[in-house]
Amino acid sequence: MNAEKNKINCAVIGARGYTGVELVKILLRHSRVELRALTTRSKETVPVRKLVPTLPEGVKLEVRPYDFESLKKNADVAFVCLAHTEAAETVKQLRKAKKIVIDLSADFRLRDEKAYPEWYGHRHPCPELLKDAVYGLSEIYREKIKKADLIANPGCYPTGAALGLWPLLKADLIDSDTLVIDAKSGVSGAGKKLNEATQFCEVNENFYAYKVNRHQHTPEIEQTLSDAAGKPLRVTFIPHLLPVTRGILTTLYAKLKSGVKDAKVRSAFEKAYDKEAFVRVMPEGEFPQLHAVRHTNYCDIGFSVDARTGRIVVVTAIDNLLKGASGQAVQNMNIRLGFPEDEGLKTW
Amino acid sequence: MNAEKNKINCAVIGARGYTGVELVKILLRHSRVELRALTTRSKETVPVRKLVPTLPEGVKLEVRPYDFESLKKNADVAFVCLAHTEAAETVKQLRKAKKIVIDLSADFRLRDEKAYPEWYGHRHPCPELLKDAVYGLSEIYREKIKKADLIANPGCYPTGAALGLWPLLKADLIDSDTLVIDAKSGVSGAGKKLNEATQFCEVNENFYAYKVNRHQHTPEIEQTLSDAAGKPLRVTFIPHLLPVTRGILTTLYAKLKSGVKDAKVRSAFEKAYDKEAFVRVMPEGEFPQLHAVRHTNYCDIGFSVDARTGRIVVVTAIDNLLKGASGQAVQNMNIRLGFPEDEGLKTW
Amino acid sequence: MNAEKNKINCAVIGARGYTGVELVKILLRHSRVELRALTTRSKETVPVRKLVPTLPEGVKLEVRPYDFESLKKNADVAFVCLAHTEAAETVKQLRKAKKIVIDLSADFRLRDEKAYPEWYGHRHPCPELLKDAVYGLSEIYREKIKKADLIANPGCYPTGAALGLWPLLKADLIDSDTLVIDAKSGVSGAGKKLNEATQFCEVNENFYAYKVNRHQHTPEIEQTLSDAAGKPLRVTFIPHLLPVTRGILTTLYAKLKSGVKDAKVRSAFEKAYDKEAFVRVMPEGEFPQLHAVRHTNYCDIGFSVDARTGRIVVVTAIDNLLKGASGQAVQNMNIRLGFPEDEGLKTW
Amino acid sequence: MNAEKNKINCAVIGARGYTGVELVKILLRHSRVELRALTTRSKETVPVRKLVPTLPEGVKLEVRPYDFESLKKNADVAFVCLAHTEAAETVKQLRKAKKIVIDLSADFRLRDEKAYPEWYGHRHPCPELLKDAVYGLSEIYREKIKKADLIANPGCYPTGAALGLWPLLKADLIDSDTLVIDAKSGVSGAGKKLNEATQFCEVNENFYAYKVNRHQHTPEIEQTLSDAAGKPLRVTFIPHLLPVTRGILTTLYAKLKSGVKDAKVRSAFEKAYDKEAFVRVMPEGEFPQLHAVRHTNYCDIGFSVDARTGRIVVVTAIDNLLKGASGQAVQNMNIRLGFPEDEGLKTW
Repeated sequence: MNAEKNKINCAVIGARGYTGVELVKILLRHSRVELRALTTRSKETVPVRKLVPTLPEGVKLEVRPYDFESLKKNADVAFVCLAHTEAAETVKQLRKAKKIVIDLSADFRLRDEKAYPEWYGHRHPCPELLKDAVYGLSEIYREKIKKADLIANPGCYPTGAALGLWPLLKADLIDSDTLVIDAKSGVSGAGKKLNEATQFCEVNENFYAYKVNRHQHTPEIEQTLSDAAGKPLRVTFIPHLLPVTRGILTTLYAKLKSGVKDAKVRSAFEKAYDKEAFVRVMPEGEFPQLHAVRHTNYCDIGFSVDARTGRIVVVTAIDNLLKGASGQAVQNMNIRLGFPEDEGLKTW
Repeated sequence: MNAEKNKINCAVIGARGYTGVELVKILLRHSRVELRALTTRSKETVPVRKLVPTLPEGVKLEVRPYDFESLKKNADVAFVCLAHTEAAETVKQLRKAKKIVIDLSADFRLRDEKAYPEWYGHRHPCPELLKDAVYGLSEIYREKIKKADLIANPGCYPTGAALGLWPLLKADLIDSDTLVIDAKSGVSGAGKKLNEATQFCEVNENFYAYKVNRHQHTPEIEQTLSDAAGKPLRVTFIPHLLPVTRGILTTLYAKLKSGVKDAKVRSAFEKAYDKEAFVRVMPEGEFPQLHAVRHTNYCDIGFSVDARTGRIVVVTAIDNLLKGASGQAVQNMNIRLGFPEDEGLKTW
Repeated sequence: MNAEKNKINCAVIGARGYTGVELVKILLRHSRVELRALTTRSKETVPVRKLVPTLPEGVKLEVRPYDFESLKKNADVAFVCLAHTEAAETVKQLRKAKKIVIDLSADFRLRDEKAYPEWYGHRHPCPELLKDAVYGLSEIYREKIKKADLIANPGCYPTGAALGLWPLLKADLIDSDTLVIDAKSGVSGAGKKLNEATQFCEVNENFYAYKVNRHQHTPEIEQTLSDAAGKPLRVTFIPHLLPVTRGILTTLYAKLKSGVKDAKVRSAFEKAYDKEAFVRVMPEGEFPQLHAVRHTNYCDIGFSVDARTGRIVVVTAIDNLLKGASGQAVQNMNIRLGFPEDEGLKTW
Repeated sequence: MNAEKNKINCAVIGARGYTGVELVKILLRHSRVELRALTTRSKETVPVRKLVPTLPEGVKLEVRPYDFESLKKNADVAFVCLAHTEAAETVKQLRKAKKIVIDLSADFRLRDEKAYPEWYGHRHPCPELLKDAVYGLSEIYREKIKKADLIANPGCYPTGAALGLWPLLKADLIDSDTLVIDAKSGVSGAGKKLNEATQFCEVNENFYAYKVNRHQHTPEIEQTLSDAAGKPLRVTFIPHLLPVTRGILTTLYAKLKSGVKDAKVRSAFEKAYDKEAFVRVMPEGEFPQLHAVRHTNYCDIGFSVDARTGRIVVVTAIDNLLKGASGQAVQNMNIRLGFPEDEGLKTW
């Protein structure tokens, strides 16, 4: 804590990737944050303006090789933007030093240790920490987040999927055995790592489904929606790669329980989200689009009840790097530290 | 018939739109076709090279105002690429003159006259012709197409959706009450008409669902799939607009009947399409992408059986302007006239 | 003036186009502005959130039909975003009412009345006002802007072109007879009006030069650069349409005067822009890119002196809707009213 | 030579890159070619349909590790699509075996051995072969190509630049000291190699100049244009990266010699290209666009004489992978072997 300035000291661990860059952009305009350290796994020190060339010339921050001792002194809150499994060890170290950790990797999202080998292909490096982690889907787990010192920030797909179905399962309006989640993500969701599949000529004018029936975000979605339903459930989740830089649109399908009408559905969504700053339930006949949420922390939700088929279609849209990652991470910090929830996130 | 040249005389009615342009490109390389007439609703005569600037300078064809008397003399086969409802009257006139008509509008696709007011918002202008029309989904209705003089060429969405589900319903492998069709189309599917929604700045970096639960292709899909199932069925069909020029990727979801395993599914697809030149069933673990079908007449199909959920996911890809429109139209002409089915369509 | 709040009252006339929308976004985050009125030429009242869906739900502003009497009461400063020639009459009316007017049209940019018929194809509707107008290229004409009540905000192309060449002409380093300006603009530069040329399928995967040797921004560029050179000069200016939504990159070519070396060039740029918040001269070997200026008010400038050919190449990049339009308009208001020059414009 | 079939045996060396893939597509539809061998530097054998998924299922060709003995038996003509410097050794080996070689690398394009260290940063590996190579700009060097056994296929940028300026220099209409070449290329021009700069998120919505004043195609352009001028000349050449997959648009600037009018310019272009199948000189007021040349072997040329400035602007467009690489390579083979020049290249 930087008492004089009434500001909290923050660090971003893994600041060179897309989520790290977005965190830098948000934290630099956050009135209650002093951004003190940016680190990278590489040995090279890089001016942050190389990574975020839209920053003013006056910003002299550098991204430096990870140095635990320096972090210990300089950070109250650490945002960890490392790759899965790499994150766990760093989180452990930071937690030992009593730092508040907001981890953007998947390493602490699943409560069930056994899910890691099944979906991520490796055993969890420090399962003993799993019980301390709070899953940071802000609107759903806010009360727990307020007290958490290890916040597992949700995946991008799970954010868009879970916010769209949660109120319907909570209010018992849909058959939990019929959930189909068809998601379409922009390319930044794949991260900044060099990859043949994300070369321009491969993505441009293309579109396809990938990791069909085996995407690692599936158990994360099921964990949250099972909480909503009050019983274990399974979903079909199919991600697709959109030729755009950012944004996820998710189309959700479910069978309505017998007799459920439009009004009941709307009232479930309103009850869930009426007081939320970052969830916007759209009026009848309107549906989300990526343009309305890009560069914002919003999750937009539209829905349509179809009497012909007895099915409901819910569409959600988020910016995968903001509400789907760095925006929600700051929202969680704001919740944890009692700052206004939208501080640093008023973009349009 | 142009007997000397052993060629058939063809006309394209409505040659200025995207499907008309693709027909011109195909018919100009078709060895059995003499392209004799191109017409437009407007009063203006335009060199076809203005519309298709990739044509060689030697192509002197013009798109001219519609002139029935001239068509009567010059065309054996007429491809009608007019807007819905506009097409019907022209088709009627051409049929009276005994021309073989391949109509790319929706005007003759639905057998049930009552579906037109419900889904298209107008009464059918000449319902008496509906019974003569054969629905031109080539692989499914080939035997009827061989004898048809009025071929109702399928819509782009229905082609990708129906080819993916037909074999599963025919072999009774899926529950016909659980069909969800999530389709994503390139912008050329909206046609060439000026439209705010298809301006570059509106589409680029955007993505959304539209006509949710009320797209006019729904009854067309249901008609074909009901044929497959041998009983009436209903589907949930949600189209989305992709920021690419051409291609449709369709993700299809259904509950498998109890005990249905992967092998049975594969064998159903093989039985249906093994001899088909234009349907390519992909090996296990591979899925379609737009790049593999763009500028071709293929429909690629991949699928995944998920034991966890008891659900099957089928993905299909087509070029909306070729297999989804003009390519299939020529495939139907080839079937009708006994030409090799891939004549004019060998593109890669 | 809203004295209690220490804020100035602003209006945006023509708020539905792309530049109007950007003004709304900037003015809503400007600490010294009360945005009081948004008007449109159409009869329809539209909530501003329809036009800018990224705004929070709490923003209740509406875009309403133009009403002079209401503007008279509610606005101290009016930003006019109307089409060329349409703007002039409105500006005249607003100036009579003593409003400070920042006009984003071309109507008051050229000092020479005779240039209008030549380049815009019409006589100027109120030439008597031309002498009162100050051309709002902020960095160049700042002292005059401070005292101007009618500011003619520069065109997007002229901003990128003039800022790149001004210091070289001012310091007499280049031959004013050899200026070639090759500019490439994103599609939003064409405005929001429906236009076949800006339909997605026409622009996507395409690129071309347009209005070759006859673009109406030519005399505007020549006017500014003639000021720099201290004598009349002519340029070759060729614009091209880029398949991106926003941004202009301009590549400028000139013959260096005999003996001019790199150091002299750099010192000319530094002298001109070292104290400027919104012009960033890049280090040797680095060149601008659209990504670095999108959604900002920066003009980035890089250059290369080529001893082989005796020529200099200067590259500039701006966001056509910000530094090229609405951002510079607010920068000019800040200059005029003595606000910090970057107020409302600190985006990254 | 495959005498029975009256076909020539061809091989593509380096068939996995973008130019290799385009060659496969062309050669598979070439009536006088038997495509016998496809090789790669990697150890892995890959079905060509993995690389070109639009090919029919019946195409069973494989891309195999390079095997000189097999090539010796199986190929009359070898297209070499290897990286610069790598190509030279392979070309040498193939020439020793008396194969006709069409080399798509830069290794034999420059006549002056000393230019390699200067522009490519390495000494030429086999300078003794340089004198045997004929530069394959088909329209300009056709007579020499007819007799060449080693054809150095031009670079993509030099093709678009040289075809646009050649007639003007040849007819002595422009001042050779004033040539400015502003070129914009699609991303496939960078090749298929993994590269951070060509990742989707880096290219999409971006645009910039690169290798400013130091691109390695500069001496190649100067070599051809010096031939046209009959004396050595130097050009300013600045390439830019366009966010499209394919196509190069080049804008060329020059000072006209005193008294040169539009008619003289047009007659120079007509004289040069009137009988050319693949160069299309556009009518007055029309200019090239990428859409008109994509997937074709055309070079489109438009120009504008500006009396105001005494300057001419020429715009050319090509598909960088066809006229800028593989299409011209086949055109050159057709010239060399006396096949119709457009065989295999009739695409639209």
